[in-house]
This record gives sequence, structure tokens and C-alpha cells, in this order.
Amino acid sequence: MSDVPSDANAGCPGTGSDGAGKASGCAGCPNQSSCASGAGPKPDADIEFIQDRFRKIKHKILILSGKGGVGKSTLTSNLARALAADPTKQVAILDVDICGPSQPRMMGVENEEVHSSADGWTPVGIQPNLTLMSIAFLLGNKDDAVIWRGARKNGMIKQFLKDVDWGDVDYLLIDTPPGTSDEHISLVQFLLQAGPLDGALIISTPQEVSLLDVRKEVSFCMKTKVPILGVVENMARFVCPNCAHTTMLFPNSTGGAEKMCADSNLELLAQLPLDPALAKALDNGEDFFETHPDSTLATSFKKLAEQVQAKLK
Amino acid sequence: MSDVPSDANAGCPGTGSDGAGKASGCAGCPNQSSCASGAGPKPDADIEFIQDRFRKIKHKILILSGKGGVGKSTLTSNLARALAADPTKQVAILDVDICGPSQPRMMGVENEEVHSSADGWTPVGIQPNLTLMSIAFLLGNKDDAVIWRGARKNGMIKQFLKDVDWGDVDYLLIDTPPGTSDEHISLVQFLLQAGPLDGALIISTPQEVSLLDVRKEVSFCMKTKVPILGVVENMARFVCPNCAHTTMLFPNSTGGAEKMCADSNLELLAQLPLDPALAKALDNGEDFFETHPDSTLATSFKKLAEQVQAKLK
Repeated sequence: MSDVPSDANAGCPGTGSDGAGKASGCAGCPNQSSCASGAGPKPDADIEFIQDRFRKIKHKILILSGKGGVGKSTLTSNLARALAADPTKQVAILDVDICGPSQPRMMGVENEEVHSSADGWTPVGIQPNLTLMSIAFLLGNKDDAVIWRGARKNGMIKQFLKDVDWGDVDYLLIDTPPGTSDEHISLVQFLLQAGPLDGALIISTPQEVSLLDVRKEVSFCMKTKVPILGVVENMARFVCPNCAHTTMLFPNSTGGAEKMCADSNLELLAQLPLDPALAKALDNGEDFFETHPDSTLATSFKKLAEQVQAKLK
Repeated sequence: MSDVPSDANAGCPGTGSDGAGKASGCAGCPNQSSCASGAGPKPDADIEFIQDRFRKIKHKILILSGKGGVGKSTLTSNLARALAADPTKQVAILDVDICGPSQPRMMGVENEEVHSSADGWTPVGIQPNLTLMSIAFLLGNKDDAVIWRGARKNGMIKQFLKDVDWGDVDYLLIDTPPGTSDEHISLVQFLLQAGPLDGALIISTPQEVSLLDVRKEVSFCMKTKVPILGVVENMARFVCPNCAHTTMLFPNSTGGAEKMCADSNLELLAQLPLDPALAKALDNGEDFFETHPDSTLATSFKKLAEQVQAKLK
């Protein structure tokens, strides 16, 4: 009896097959040794804990992108702030970009610490209805590199999912690292086992070299059965502050996100301009909706938050 | 007798210590089981093969950045072309960004295939003195996600180092994925064991959120004893094509790469402007030095190539 679990790594030869636990695709899989021994994948006792933690979280949204530097963290922080503008909603951010966590800086809580109690880790409060958990809070020196192999990162992600006491949450936004690596596989495997996942927002810039990686992310979502809520195109244009001339900073030589969405039957939710004021606000941990309330970009983020909310109802 | 190897993962308890092979830092380390059994790390028989392959490579340069999307692949491809402008030099690129390889597209050889012979894999030729090896050549469908855990990626990197028949090479540029993950640890461990490594070029954009990650990369280089050749600041400014007004797209609110270099005693080699023509040329696999020979950016890349060459003599 050979059976490939739906949440398996690429290259899984199927539990119960002759190659189980021995194929190249088994390298790093948590079930490798139990499959190789013929016992098959073990049920994970931690899943029950994760289910308990997630019972009070209404909506879970992944922010994904195959490529780095296209604006995942920027989108996460601004979408969270836009959703939290409604004081009746509880919003939380989980920053699982282990090698490069940027949420604490962007949200202005870089020097805060996570408190640990009998109920688990308490996320850091940004405003009464907005909290954040990031590995950055657990590191001694913010300049130190996290030189961890995949297996250790998986352990950290599981601990985040198991040990953080989120309380009641309406929207949990999960900021991920670039690519389709250990962090992504673990996260999706754990989340899918812990209950329904609303889906992923995929973000890209317009040029083909970025879309190349984003198409891989779409394929990752399809393979792992994560629904795609829609696509956001970032840094789509730049308006000169001196003459108001609009430039495509990263020309959409192959049709940009618009064509990719049409080809893959995905919804293009927004095309956001690049505004240097946003990078500056995030560097300073400031709320862009307070510093630039009437900017085109702030309006676009608010509209995007409404679109996302409408999709989750 | 407890001893932490100089190329160990963060959290290595030391070979021969009571925790050897059992500490959380041991997760994913190739020596975990032999350390846990008390035997200590095994000498790796493949290192000899890698040493053989690398004997004919004069200079090996890593292109690193903690953050994605700051221009590692762009820098790699243009630096390679600038170095290859001297027909007496053989230049090669190794693209180890397994989840998001972009070199084949940027170098205009996306549909090429790697040939395998008794001597190993032959890299794809771009011009007579410029070759490229990338995982993208080995994947069936360029849109497919590479959903591999760290251990499998390590195997792939080792195979690249062991099985590629580079021939005589003056400059090998290694384009890496963002972060300080499995790929980086494996790459650096293998390369350092296989002979001297000239060093790393570190690339960043000017804003603090990017420098945060880049400082981690500097700490990674120091911990793993990889010399840093210098720092390149990318997308430092944008000149409006309509009115020639200069904008800082990502304001250097904390002093930019200049201050980071001063603080860490590193050399700032270049501050490159953002030129949309470059993104377009790379999307089309065109040689930017041919399409825009007199642009500020082309001149900057040529100067950077000279600086790098001078450092390697």
C-alpha cells in the first residue's frame, strides 16, 4: 500500500512504498525515519495543541511571494493596520521570516520583549487591538545572524504555533520569508492540520524576473492546496514628486501581474505605487495611515483591506 | 574533550560534549547522528571531489545579502558580463538560489539544457568566455515550485560543487538566495573545506529595514570566517527621465550603507542608481552593456568590476 499524503514534500515516494523514507525527497521530512522503518508517518501529538491555540482565531491569511524584496512585510504591516482601524476587530501578525524578521522595526516595537506565562508567550501589543509575534523578540542581538538549518527552523515555527497565546483574534496575518522552503512547508502542513486556512495573498513586482518566482509560489499553493485570495502588484509605478511624471520602475515586459493573473485565473486585487514616504515611515516604525492619511498609497491599502474582508465573510 | 568546529551551525554544543548531536542547534546538521553516537563528525569523502573540481578555479566570490529583492542576481549577472569583457578571462556563474533561480532568464539562456558527460555536467555557454550553471536548467517546468526541505537542498548544492565540470575559470561568481539558511551554511562549509574563498560581496538597499538583514549577513560572514570584499548599495536613487529630478526611493533614514560600512569597518564599493532599462534588459536576457553602453549604471558596473579585480590580485 503506497500513499502520498496531500501535504507531502515534493518527491515523496508514498508512505508504504519501497522507497519510503529513503528517496531523495525524504531528506529533511519529519517522517523520514518512521517511514523508513516501515511504520509510516507518525501522528503528530503537537497538532492538538496547535488546534487549541487556533480555535479562537477566526481568519488566517498567509502573505506569500516567491521573491524577496517585493513587499511582503510592507503589505503585512499596512494591511494589519488598515484592518485594525475597525476597533471592534482584533488583528494579529505572526512574523515567521526567521532569517530576516522586519515586523518589529516596521511596527515600532523593536525593543520590546515577549512575556512568557503559564499560558504561553504573550505577543507584543502595538495598539489595543493589534499584536505581533516575531522571532526578532527572542534574539539577543538584532544584528546577529540566525544561522539555523531547516530542521531547527521548523522546530521554531512549531513552537510559535504551539506556544503563543493569541487570545481572541479576528484576523491573523502571517508574514513569510521568500521562497518555498522549510518554513513554508512546515507552516502550511501545520496550519492545514490545525483547521481551515482562509488562504494566501500573493505579492509581486511587475517585471518577469519577479513573476518567474511568483508563478512558482502559485504552483506551491496549488500543490499544497492553499487557496489563493488574490494577487497584489507592488512598486508598479513611481510618480516623480517634482514633475508628476509616472515611471514604470520595473517594466512589465511580459504583461506584469495582470497577464499572470489572467493566465492563472487569479484575481489582481491591487496595483500599488512606490512611495518613498512609506519606506521612511516603516523605518521609523510609524503608522503610515497617520503620517500620510490622504496619500494614494494609504487609500489603496484601505481599499485592499476592504476587499480582503469581503472575501473572508 | 569538547570542540566547536569553526564551520559549525549556530548552537553547536561542541563535538565530544555531552550534548553533541542532541542540542537544538544540531537539528539538520549532517553530523548529527555521528556526533550523537559519540564518534564525532565524520570526514566527508566528497570534499576531495570538490577540491578537484575547484583546483582550476582561480577566484571564488559569493554574492550575499540578508534580504531578497535588493539586486543580488542583477549584480551577479552584470558583474559577470563586465568581467567577461576582457576576452582573456574565463568567467562562470553558479546560481544556487534553488527556490528562485533567475540567472538563466537574465542571461538569455532560459531554454537551454545542461549536458551531462563522463566528466560531469557542462555549464551552459553564454559567450565564449562566460558560462552558467543553475538549478533552473534541471527543472522540467520553470513555473513549478521547488518544494524541498533544507536537507535536500544541501544535497543539490553539494552535487553542483561536485559534478559540474567548469574547466579553467578565472572568476566564479556565486549567486545565493536571501537569508542565512541551509543553502548558505552548506555552501560556505563546502567551499571553505575545498580551498581558499576570495570573499563575499554584500548588497543592500539604503533603508533601515534592508540594512537590518544585511547586518545579519555581515555577522554570518564573520562567524563563518568568510572575508567581506565590500558592500554595494543598490537602488540608491532614481533620476526622473522627464525632469532629471533625483529621488531617494528607499530613504536612508539611518544613514544607509555608508554609515553601516563606517560602523563595521567595511568598504562601500558602489552606490548604484535604479534604472528601469536594466530590469527590462534582464527580463529580455539582453546584455545591458550592449543595449545601454553609455548609461551611468553601465559605467558604474564597469568600475565595480575593476575594483573587484584589483582586490583579488
